[in-house]
Amino acid sequence: MAAHGYSELNPSRRLLMGPGPSDAHPRVLRAMTTPLLGHLDPEFLELMEESKTLLRSAFGTANDLTIPISATGSAGMEAAFVNVVEPGDDVIVCVNGVFGQRMSDIVGRCGANLTRVEADWGATVAAEDVAAALKAVKNPKVVAIVHAETSTGVLQPLGDIAALARDHGALSLVDAVTSLAGAPVDVDATGIDVAYSGTQKCLSCPPGLSPITFSARALEVIQARKTKVQSWYLDMSMIARYWGEERVYHHTAPISMVYAFREALRLVDEEGLEARFERHRLHSAALAAGLEALGLGLGAEAGNRAPMLTLTSIPDGVDDGAVRRRLLSEFNLEIGGGLGVFAGKMWRIGLMGESCRRSSVLTCLDALETCLRDEGQSIGAGAGVSAALGYYADGA
Amino acid sequence: MAAHGYSELNPSRRLLMGPGPSDAHPRVLRAMTTPLLGHLDPEFLELMEESKTLLRSAFGTANDLTIPISATGSAGMEAAFVNVVEPGDDVIVCVNGVFGQRMSDIVGRCGANLTRVEADWGATVAAEDVAAALKAVKNPKVVAIVHAETSTGVLQPLGDIAALARDHGALSLVDAVTSLAGAPVDVDATGIDVAYSGTQKCLSCPPGLSPITFSARALEVIQARKTKVQSWYLDMSMIARYWGEERVYHHTAPISMVYAFREALRLVDEEGLEARFERHRLHSAALAAGLEALGLGLGAEAGNRAPMLTLTSIPDGVDDGAVRRRLLSEFNLEIGGGLGVFAGKMWRIGLMGESCRRSSVLTCLDALETCLRDEGQSIGAGAGVSAALGYYADGA
Repeated sequence: MAAHGYSELNPSRRLLMGPGPSDAHPRVLRAMTTPLLGHLDPEFLELMEESKTLLRSAFGTANDLTIPISATGSAGMEAAFVNVVEPGDDVIVCVNGVFGQRMSDIVGRCGANLTRVEADWGATVAAEDVAAALKAVKNPKVVAIVHAETSTGVLQPLGDIAALARDHGALSLVDAVTSLAGAPVDVDATGIDVAYSGTQKCLSCPPGLSPITFSARALEVIQARKTKVQSWYLDMSMIARYWGEERVYHHTAPISMVYAFREALRLVDEEGLEARFERHRLHSAALAAGLEALGLGLGAEAGNRAPMLTLTSIPDGVDDGAVRRRLLSEFNLEIGGGLGVFAGKMWRIGLMGESCRRSSVLTCLDALETCLRDEGQSIGAGAGVSAALGYYADGA
Repeated sequence: MAAHGYSELNPSRRLLMGPGPSDAHPRVLRAMTTPLLGHLDPEFLELMEESKTLLRSAFGTANDLTIPISATGSAGMEAAFVNVVEPGDDVIVCVNGVFGQRMSDIVGRCGANLTRVEADWGATVAAEDVAAALKAVKNPKVVAIVHAETSTGVLQPLGDIAALARDHGALSLVDAVTSLAGAPVDVDATGIDVAYSGTQKCLSCPPGLSPITFSARALEVIQARKTKVQSWYLDMSMIARYWGEERVYHHTAPISMVYAFREALRLVDEEGLEARFERHRLHSAALAAGLEALGLGLGAEAGNRAPMLTLTSIPDGVDDGAVRRRLLSEFNLEIGGGLGVFAGKMWRIGLMGESCRRSSVLTCLDALETCLRDEGQSIGAGAGVSAALGYYADGA
């Protein structure tokens, strides 16, 4: 007799349009029902190899050490830093949102000397500011920057900053949690040394893994360390021996998540990266047209909006929490609230991976219109949906 | 057109009798096909609460901070140490196998002063040796010990050592990765301050989470820290605010794994802990009888054998790798090889959670007998299976 007697899982069927997780494809969910293999079973090792190959394509890299870390995207951030940074190192972090701040926090926990290059929330970081920091810092080891800031919806150009880092003998370290498979990351072409991501954004795999890649230059830095990596669990010198040819036991890989990850990457492979990027561009532009027709402002500066995450301002007098609760309870639609300085001021609307489709755009605009009108906003009937449809018809 | 074109998942159907993962119940696998909720969705928060309640029962604790860490069991070990240990602290680690060694490695990475209390592989750690270490160390902060050593198959008595730690003002920290839900851990009754586990052993949930619990005393130690926890990802002061009433965003919870975890705990709740312990005791005793009838020695000392993991010696002249490869390829049966000093000398046969059943015992003994005979061992036909059946008939 069960002591607690909780019932079978029976959650509501949401449309996930927040900052992640996004909806998972049924094939990805189904992959997780595959019976378990052992983590050293030759058949599992083959699936690991296939996952690495598919992941390299998604990252746009030939880097050998390109694997999923056995924890969520935030652990990928930590793994990136703790492996290449040692106490006393000089590290430059670009900060224009929550995730740059989080990087700074982690750098401090590494005992490194932190230099912050700041930009306004909603703006990109200027390459000349990074150049100035590189000149001012004695021996810069790492320049870290977020590609798509999930707190602001900004897509950061990376090429100039990666080149500057390299010119100064520093590694470039990029947060691609939200961008991977939704916008070009192009690790090798851009000259990025370390990049990490999450599975629950544009890959549309459930959260739980953090894809990461290290360049040959980054590996040299790791091999030249004088101190042990402060995290045993995230020590790439050991993890690489499990994911590499030696297959030395380190920890037990999360088998079912790797199944899901491989299937999500198969879907990316089938769609093709370029088509996937274009899909994200198209639907986010249609969403933006609709939001503006609803009288809502857009958060990130024009020209640098992340195509998978749109920030939109909450009009004066509209109750942030009440609208989001109603969207969830009445429309089964999740959008995100603001983070940090944007809390209560901005909504974050994701169009990521499987959630990024025409029906999501129309459903969201329609539901938002209803809620905003009931909150006292004056909006013409169907204004948002009409503008999006107009964009699809003419502007695409 | 897919660039890589890897095929749909189609692995062989294994019987998992290694040191983990164990077979997952179909209900647990099915739970992961449930469409995703957002990680701050009220419906997900309710599932988190239910998981915490079920986990407290499994651990035998009323500790408020009892949650699954969003990474595998090894990360639970790291989380346990990095939260309660600061640089310069005195930490005592009991070492009688691989996982005590791993604890020592992590303690070193924390910058703490390590004192090892050693015992032979296959033996338990003596309480008097721990008492001597507690007297010798100036200001012991933590006494760490493994409950079921996955490298040796030893089940370590905990009560005396936890009491000694408390008497000296130190926290007791226990690795319950392999024991939880297979043998009594009884956190509160035993007086354990920090315990962590994995999902892929006797809980029979896929690997990917690490259940952990902290006593009020442990929380006081965390609150009194002078330094930040070296791991941002595993910083319990932040994680507790997401799993607690504040629901402050820290990282995105691995939704599907939490679904699976809750379902695995529901199955434990339905079976009942006592019945589950008795099941593990019964089948491991039957397995041991069968192995001895096959002429194989048992690894751990009598009276302290872990009921979920049996170590058995590989006879002279038998090819370890060849037998395990044949068990896998011909019988679809996974058993584990030896770790550390037992590599090539011992097999590790798990009877964990869903894998712990009469049919597993008989299948394993039958397959082993075939392999051993073909390796030149002289064994009467059906000797192992007969001995196990005899145990079930008479000895149970």
